[in-house]
Amino acid sequence: MKLKNLVSQRFKERPADCLIDSHALMIRGGYMKYVANGIYSELPALRRVTSKIEAIIREEMNAIDGQEVLFPIVMPAELWQESGRYDSIANELVRFQDRNQSKLVLGMTHEEAAVHLVREYGQSYQQYPFMIYQIQRKFRDEARPRAGMIRVREFTMKDAYSFHTSQEDLDQYYQKCYEAYQRIFRRVGIPEVVTVASDAGMMGGNLSHEYMLLNEVGEDSIVLCAECDYRANMEAAANIVENVSNGATAPLEYVATLDCKTIEEVCDFFKTDISASCKAVVYQKNADNTFVVAFVRGDYEVNETKLSNLVGDELHVAEITADTPLTAGYIGPYGLSKQVAYYCDLSLKGMDSLVAGANREGFHLKGLNLERDLGEIDYVDLAKVKAGGICPCCKKPALTIQRGIEVGNIFQLGTKYTESMHMQFADKDGTMHYPIMGCYGIGIGRLAASVCEARHDEYGPIFPISIAPWEVHICCIRPDDLETKSAADHLYEELTKQKVEVLYDDREGVRGGQMFADADLIGVPIRVIVSPRNLKDEKIEVSTRDKSVHAVVEVSESLTYIMKLRERLYQELT
Amino acid sequence: MKLKNLVSQRFKERPADCLIDSHALMIRGGYMKYVANGIYSELPALRRVTSKIEAIIREEMNAIDGQEVLFPIVMPAELWQESGRYDSIANELVRFQDRNQSKLVLGMTHEEAAVHLVREYGQSYQQYPFMIYQIQRKFRDEARPRAGMIRVREFTMKDAYSFHTSQEDLDQYYQKCYEAYQRIFRRVGIPEVVTVASDAGMMGGNLSHEYMLLNEVGEDSIVLCAECDYRANMEAAANIVENVSNGATAPLEYVATLDCKTIEEVCDFFKTDISASCKAVVYQKNADNTFVVAFVRGDYEVNETKLSNLVGDELHVAEITADTPLTAGYIGPYGLSKQVAYYCDLSLKGMDSLVAGANREGFHLKGLNLERDLGEIDYVDLAKVKAGGICPCCKKPALTIQRGIEVGNIFQLGTKYTESMHMQFADKDGTMHYPIMGCYGIGIGRLAASVCEARHDEYGPIFPISIAPWEVHICCIRPDDLETKSAADHLYEELTKQKVEVLYDDREGVRGGQMFADADLIGVPIRVIVSPRNLKDEKIEVSTRDKSVHAVVEVSESLTYIMKLRERLYQELT
Repeated sequence: MKLKNLVSQRFKERPADCLIDSHALMIRGGYMKYVANGIYSELPALRRVTSKIEAIIREEMNAIDGQEVLFPIVMPAELWQESGRYDSIANELVRFQDRNQSKLVLGMTHEEAAVHLVREYGQSYQQYPFMIYQIQRKFRDEARPRAGMIRVREFTMKDAYSFHTSQEDLDQYYQKCYEAYQRIFRRVGIPEVVTVASDAGMMGGNLSHEYMLLNEVGEDSIVLCAECDYRANMEAAANIVENVSNGATAPLEYVATLDCKTIEEVCDFFKTDISASCKAVVYQKNADNTFVVAFVRGDYEVNETKLSNLVGDELHVAEITADTPLTAGYIGPYGLSKQVAYYCDLSLKGMDSLVAGANREGFHLKGLNLERDLGEIDYVDLAKVKAGGICPCCKKPALTIQRGIEVGNIFQLGTKYTESMHMQFADKDGTMHYPIMGCYGIGIGRLAASVCEARHDEYGPIFPISIAPWEVHICCIRPDDLETKSAADHLYEELTKQKVEVLYDDREGVRGGQMFADADLIGVPIRVIVSPRNLKDEKIEVSTRDKSVHAVVEVSESLTYIMKLRERLYQELT
Repeated sequence: MKLKNLVSQRFKERPADCLIDSHALMIRGGYMKYVANGIYSELPALRRVTSKIEAIIREEMNAIDGQEVLFPIVMPAELWQESGRYDSIANELVRFQDRNQSKLVLGMTHEEAAVHLVREYGQSYQQYPFMIYQIQRKFRDEARPRAGMIRVREFTMKDAYSFHTSQEDLDQYYQKCYEAYQRIFRRVGIPEVVTVASDAGMMGGNLSHEYMLLNEVGEDSIVLCAECDYRANMEAAANIVENVSNGATAPLEYVATLDCKTIEEVCDFFKTDISASCKAVVYQKNADNTFVVAFVRGDYEVNETKLSNLVGDELHVAEITADTPLTAGYIGPYGLSKQVAYYCDLSLKGMDSLVAGANREGFHLKGLNLERDLGEIDYVDLAKVKAGGICPCCKKPALTIQRGIEVGNIFQLGTKYTESMHMQFADKDGTMHYPIMGCYGIGIGRLAASVCEARHDEYGPIFPISIAPWEVHICCIRPDDLETKSAADHLYEELTKQKVEVLYDDREGVRGGQMFADADLIGVPIRVIVSPRNLKDEKIEVSTRDKSVHAVVEVSESLTYIMKLRERLYQELT
């Protein structure tokens, strides 16, 4: 492919709306174009990258006996009503009607379609285990698409679904898939991806892992232990707090605290540390808007995922109006209206003398001792882990928190979908059981962007050769010089004959500096410079985009040199 | 792949709702599964077929300098408002709103997205010509999905868009694409596909061709000349009628024709041939419901596409109510309300004495001579061609009409989209012009089904090796016999090592007859039978699904034999 024929533009300036580097570089490098909020078109360079990622994933899925299928994007509402998700999922699920007023949805995931496809096939234990997967577009009406291809509304995803007759069998397959994922991330050039225990969320089920690329632009918070291998998504990380009683036994006392709007102001007023306060955060259930109050120690934040799991319902931050049974700004566990459900976090357990809202306009309580003043309390874990917190695994106070991009996930779904959709198999005795499912996803575009985020410099992406749009980028400096042009043409032809994917820049009237800047911005791993200056000595220049190689090579040996370098770059990814 | 592990079921009975063979066989053979009206899931066998078709198409598109891209399925309404199609396309275009009430559509074709992607790239003549294509899912809310994968609502399509600075350049590229399409259809095993001139319909533009697989289950009517190469879609076929005056000069006369409801009854009443009558067919414009009457000779039918093109608007069959300025059952050109637009077909030109509606309840006219009684008339071509009609090319009365399945199309779009979407390029002088576009489509699933329709027998599909889900199907008869199993296993391994795609049936307890029936129903081109009976003589059986080859081969030579046969089958498709 000649660069001058490549359908793409390159831009010098960073677009103002690009908050992260990969987004900016993929726009600037002519990889993608904005169509609408969270919706992009892939230009040829990106389509080459995503095709290569897809091919690697296909190989690895086939290697663990996956069978590729294709589910529809548009599905009838009935299918999602069977699983219950037609009603339980909020706005992310696009619902619409066809010309006959039949209700349809846009596939944002395909558990229902997978069960539908194999419900009759899987009626005998002899068919098990099996795994089906697809690589298909999906649409999820995200509230806040961001960061280019990292969080979009329409995306290509590899989603796989495995079916098993026993938990042991799922465990075994889950492990195989776990390893296949490790190979995939190694092959696409980000072996540093870590797995973390995660919350299964709306997918249902039990055990699940996310594959995280640790990166400050990530939108996930990852909890890691500096002393052991413990890793978990913040949503799923257990928070351990060990309060030791200081023996304080002050009486409970109402104090006027007018003009104290925040927990910090209240603590200032009482001249007490924020960790000696009880903070209230109020939510409402999505389903019926009833209130749920979470009480945490003032220095902790509520983990909404944990709370939502406890409540068994999706929640949103409450809107407190005049007629609600809550006194905004003064909410505390003592004297709270019996109409309101509340949960006390473990961080409050064992605290002796707390400052808390008094549920009276303009008043707080001091000297609150939850067990003394409220009776027995069922403390629950609903706070976010803090840096320096206690590791649930090795029990050392060594937790750190990092940001990460989720580049893949694997879930043990259990029988959530097979039960709700009435898929059963007969075992050897003819007894009927629900098959146990696993599901395994990787977003293709997000993975491409994540690799770019992890592998770039200020000038452009540094794509690993396995997924780079081309393997070799030839810059012909001064194509108006016949000898130079002919040498570059010859190399281009020879490499192409060897099935090497070459992007060839033979644009006339473009200076070397511009060519190199464009090459940097495209980010092909091997660069070859053919110039009159080097050709005088029968040489060409070969370098790598990551600057690890820079060589001046005899023209006569250049083909061999490039072929070997290319092979080595591939080997480094295995 | 072992057949016993293949995710698929096979059914003996033809499903009652399958009207055509390919649909029935692809359901019975475990190729696809119904999800909703016009929506199917592809099982592994079909996904293998469609992947191979996609690969062939990619090769041919890349060979004519196509650059693969990916457009979104979900697009903002604004994009379709720019081209005007947001309003001009009826129910086929799915419109919906996202969580922020932004209007979106589901892509049913991607002209708008293509122009959007390259609008800035194509600002200089130096970038031209170029072609971009994608292979992507689409959704079209068809009123009447039918015939399995032949007419569905959701489908995978290869759609390509080329951009040119001159008509000559488009013509040249159009010819290249024309030939690429010929290669594609040859390679997937249906070289008999013919091209026909077609009506561009809602795509806009001028010249266009459809690639038709002549087949009685097709939903298109194709007009072919038995004497020359003329071929056209019925929608686009010019209808030539040469009426010769018989000199009759009867006066115009009102006749009471109560109880004559149809044109046939009226002609019976007048004891005149139906070809001496003037038939009225009434439509309404989709846009404003105003009436349009088409008059044709009684023995012709209205070609609604021609009429719609003449009117310049989409039409539907009229609903005539009491307050309309039309007398249902008695509509004729003489005395018709001036409020109503009408068109007279060429088939009426030169007729002397017609029977026609009198626009009075209960009356027809006889002796109508259009020119004498109505003055000069601008006859237009709006009737369907009839078998035996005059060829517009060689002028012989040799037209025949056949049914066909449209497996591909190529359109010259002109500047319809570039003008409406303001895409311009500067030529050498700096003058701005609208680029000229071509577009080129092939439906992947429909092509798979069409090949099955053209290549099958009563027992199953006869897939060409280039797109068959596997190349070789091994039946191991009596896998409980150790020697047989070991010979079959060995052959399976050897072939797999040679990268041959093998489906291996080593199911225990399944009789040979059942294995062969299943092999027929799956339709893999090369079948190998390993059985105790033949093995006694050190032989195995090799045959082809189309019965052209049936050989008993020495075990020691079987691998070589199969490899050669496989190569030959591929060669036959080039």
